[in-house]
Amino acid sequence: MNLLLVESQDFIAPGRVRISDRRFLHLRDVIGLEPGKCYRAGIRGGQVGTATLTEFSPEAAVLEVECTEPPPPECGVTLVCALPRPQTFHKVLHCAVTMGVKTLYFIHTRKVEKSYWDASVLAPEAVEREVTLALEQCGDTIPPVIEYRRRFKPFAEDELPGLVANAAGGGYFGHPRATAEVPETPPHPLVLAVGPEGGFNDFENDLLERAGLIPVTLGRRILRTEFAVAALLAKLG
Amino acid sequence: MNLLLVESQDFIAPGRVRISDRRFLHLRDVIGLEPGKCYRAGIRGGQVGTATLTEFSPEAAVLEVECTEPPPPECGVTLVCALPRPQTFHKVLHCAVTMGVKTLYFIHTRKVEKSYWDASVLAPEAVEREVTLALEQCGDTIPPVIEYRRRFKPFAEDELPGLVANAAGGGYFGHPRATAEVPETPPHPLVLAVGPEGGFNDFENDLLERAGLIPVTLGRRILRTEFAVAALLAKLG
Repeated sequence: MNLLLVESQDFIAPGRVRISDRRFLHLRDVIGLEPGKCYRAGIRGGQVGTATLTEFSPEAAVLEVECTEPPPPECGVTLVCALPRPQTFHKVLHCAVTMGVKTLYFIHTRKVEKSYWDASVLAPEAVEREVTLALEQCGDTIPPVIEYRRRFKPFAEDELPGLVANAAGGGYFGHPRATAEVPETPPHPLVLAVGPEGGFNDFENDLLERAGLIPVTLGRRILRTEFAVAALLAKLG
Repeated sequence: MNLLLVESQDFIAPGRVRISDRRFLHLRDVIGLEPGKCYRAGIRGGQVGTATLTEFSPEAAVLEVECTEPPPPECGVTLVCALPRPQTFHKVLHCAVTMGVKTLYFIHTRKVEKSYWDASVLAPEAVEREVTLALEQCGDTIPPVIEYRRRFKPFAEDELPGLVANAAGGGYFGHPRATAEVPETPPHPLVLAVGPEGGFNDFENDLLERAGLIPVTLGRRILRTEFAVAALLAKLG
């Protein structure tokens, strides 16, 4: 937890919060409580700054919050990702949020197993929790908008062309047999699509290209989804 | 498993291997067995190519191996990484191997907990297994050389300057307060040092700079170690 993320319901007076949950336990047991101690803090959806400890008991803490700086800039990439297998979903989500993605689409493709859509990791409270942990990790306060599309064709034909057309930097998708390398620092914003294990199939590749996305490759090495996302965002973000 | 990695002891005749272990179960249960089916294959430490199924039973398979192409090029980065906590160690190792790192140093720093050095994930057979899985993932055959240094100062003073001096691209280390951004596509080979959670301390930063490493930053966002490694290797590799 590199940022104490406070919520509107934590406020007990203007500029003053009281916390007693997981965040308090982390301050108490990992970072340490000392009168007057100052922690990096941010208000969900708002500014970042500091929280100064004014009172505490073994069960709760009261802090004075002063947040006047903007959170870190977003990375300018809209990420479209084939729904990963359950054990990978939170890794990809965590990676995308910590690297500053603010719009995320998880989509169905031919090589996404249907059962993945029923995974408990997709429950709204599980997603919310991972987003919060990711914001606390990277020092950000702005959660992403997360959309789910269970049908590839209508998404690729009806939505994706508009997303790409509205992005100054256009769009790219990872394709192992592409000949173009991932561009370094292209214009922003842009759209990045990442396939499932085994890749998009020919039909999907075709629709992605028709939607305006350019196939690019990271080279001959096939990376796990979460590391492919990290590598692509590092280059494109 | 994107590559069937065969070992010298798998050969029962020139160009012919018999497998019955985890790799066979993966072919049988995940990819599927069919007479004449051709799998992507590589010989540990050697070339890559194909393996064609000639015989199989429920317990084992015999394949004709033809490997005449070089494995993917290495990334040209020597990675020096503060020993991560046990649950992160294999993620970092996997990421580095799949992204083509061939020389890896795991080192002690002030913020590495001493207990991490006793973790079972560091046992040679556990490391070997993760390296093998990573090579199978990325389609490579050449395992990295992995070194461990339990004392920071002698490493930073006596070994690191030589590593940097011998690297055409010099060296970099991640530092959250650095003002220089990570360079895009610098000369290779180069040395990259990644700190522990909480970063290198001032003493360590000083020794790293004296060893010739340049402090660089990925920006204000603090990433989990495995994603920081992936992002830095994507930019520098």
